[in-house]
Amino acid sequence: MDRYLKNGERLDDLNIDGLMIIQNPRKFCFGMDAVMLANFATVKKGDRVVDMGTGTGIIPIILAGKTKASSIIGIEIQEDMAEMAARSVAMNGLEDRVSIYAGDLRAAASFVPEGTADLVVSNPPYIDGGHGLVNPDSSKAIARHEIMCTLEDIIASAGKVLKNGGRLALIHRSGRMVDVLLGMRERGIEPKRLRMIHPRVDSEANLFLVEGIKEGGKFLKVLKPLVIYDGEGEYTEEIHSIYYDGERM
Amino acid sequence: MDRYLKNGERLDDLNIDGLMIIQNPRKFCFGMDAVMLANFATVKKGDRVVDMGTGTGIIPIILAGKTKASSIIGIEIQEDMAEMAARSVAMNGLEDRVSIYAGDLRAAASFVPEGTADLVVSNPPYIDGGHGLVNPDSSKAIARHEIMCTLEDIIASAGKVLKNGGRLALIHRSGRMVDVLLGMRERGIEPKRLRMIHPRVDSEANLFLVEGIKEGGKFLKVLKPLVIYDGEGEYTEEIHSIYYDGERM
Repeated sequence: MDRYLKNGERLDDLNIDGLMIIQNPRKFCFGMDAVMLANFATVKKGDRVVDMGTGTGIIPIILAGKTKASSIIGIEIQEDMAEMAARSVAMNGLEDRVSIYAGDLRAAASFVPEGTADLVVSNPPYIDGGHGLVNPDSSKAIARHEIMCTLEDIIASAGKVLKNGGRLALIHRSGRMVDVLLGMRERGIEPKRLRMIHPRVDSEANLFLVEGIKEGGKFLKVLKPLVIYDGEGEYTEEIHSIYYDGERM
Repeated sequence: MDRYLKNGERLDDLNIDGLMIIQNPRKFCFGMDAVMLANFATVKKGDRVVDMGTGTGIIPIILAGKTKASSIIGIEIQEDMAEMAARSVAMNGLEDRVSIYAGDLRAAASFVPEGTADLVVSNPPYIDGGHGLVNPDSSKAIARHEIMCTLEDIIASAGKVLKNGGRLALIHRSGRMVDVLLGMRERGIEPKRLRMIHPRVDSEANLFLVEGIKEGGKFLKVLKPLVIYDGEGEYTEEIHSIYYDGERM
């Protein structure tokens, strides 16, 4: 495997049929958020999937390992991240189903014909704007702050590449849930499934997962809460089974 | 107490310092929804509160018993319900703080000067429209279906009577959460506190509580889930303490 690794990079085992991922700890490493999103989105056999802002490529690789999606495209604006993600795809022998493009998700329609995607997923930057950042060019800042794209950009771009009846699945901070739900409806993607994420069952939510359907009818299903830690501070059974047993939600 | 009761009516003890409520089982009786809303809304000492669609008067009576609100107005379009609610208020000796008006909540500003309320609460009809109902005049139909007012009517009317910084607290079905959150923001009432209600901790939500602030900043706090029943099918500790120990959320 070492021929795939560059200086400062490491390999992590995803506990999915031997799949591995390359990361560089000095840049942005994937978090639990991406893993939860990959396991929440509805994926059907033969689906054409697009991941907007794929970073390390974690979501496409999980989806390739756990679902029967036929093609998964990851778009990443940071060229060095995209190049590393492409090496992870090659290392896992997933080139026939997963493609990584270095490019701007706002121009996703240049990689994916309009109106053809079954599913768009995105674990976007959570923080509104990037004003006053010491280092707005850093990989971590771009992943966390709305420097290169806004929430609105992602929803608009997803709206273009999705076919009618196609799905957009996002994870975001609960503080911005109204923005997300409104933004989806305004672009004709009706929120249909929502899951709040609580660190503990008796704590406030910090994140949420949502899936909307392009031209879907108005009715939101709110699933059982997703709880990360149990009373002993250990992963709950559900989180454990997602991380270690290859399960999805 | 019997002099307050008419034929077919019954008295229920609210377990709050001896407060009682008159109900008629052939008409609409209050549900757990109203009780949860009354215990969720933020109420400060001296607040002027309006309950839109007060029904039996359950919310004003609970708020009078559990909070230091200085005035609580209940508006109810069904004259017989309003008359019964007013008898409950009198029976409990709450006339100095609670007033019931038989009238249309869409004209709330004729009972409450515009821009003066600290809090508006409403447990509205949940079901979109009243088309095809066998008996659209029945008390239960009016309480459950959007026959006499819509969600939009309630939010718009609340927006008029609330002062800037005043709060609107609602309970509604989770299936319509996007409508509620959007409707509030569109009328300048920013959703600030949200609590999903799950019958059991591992079941989908069926209802939610939300409180918005007129001219409030954009940030939604999502509280811990409100769970009704425990694993044995008994009320959870929180619900029990609300019903029997005079606690609020």
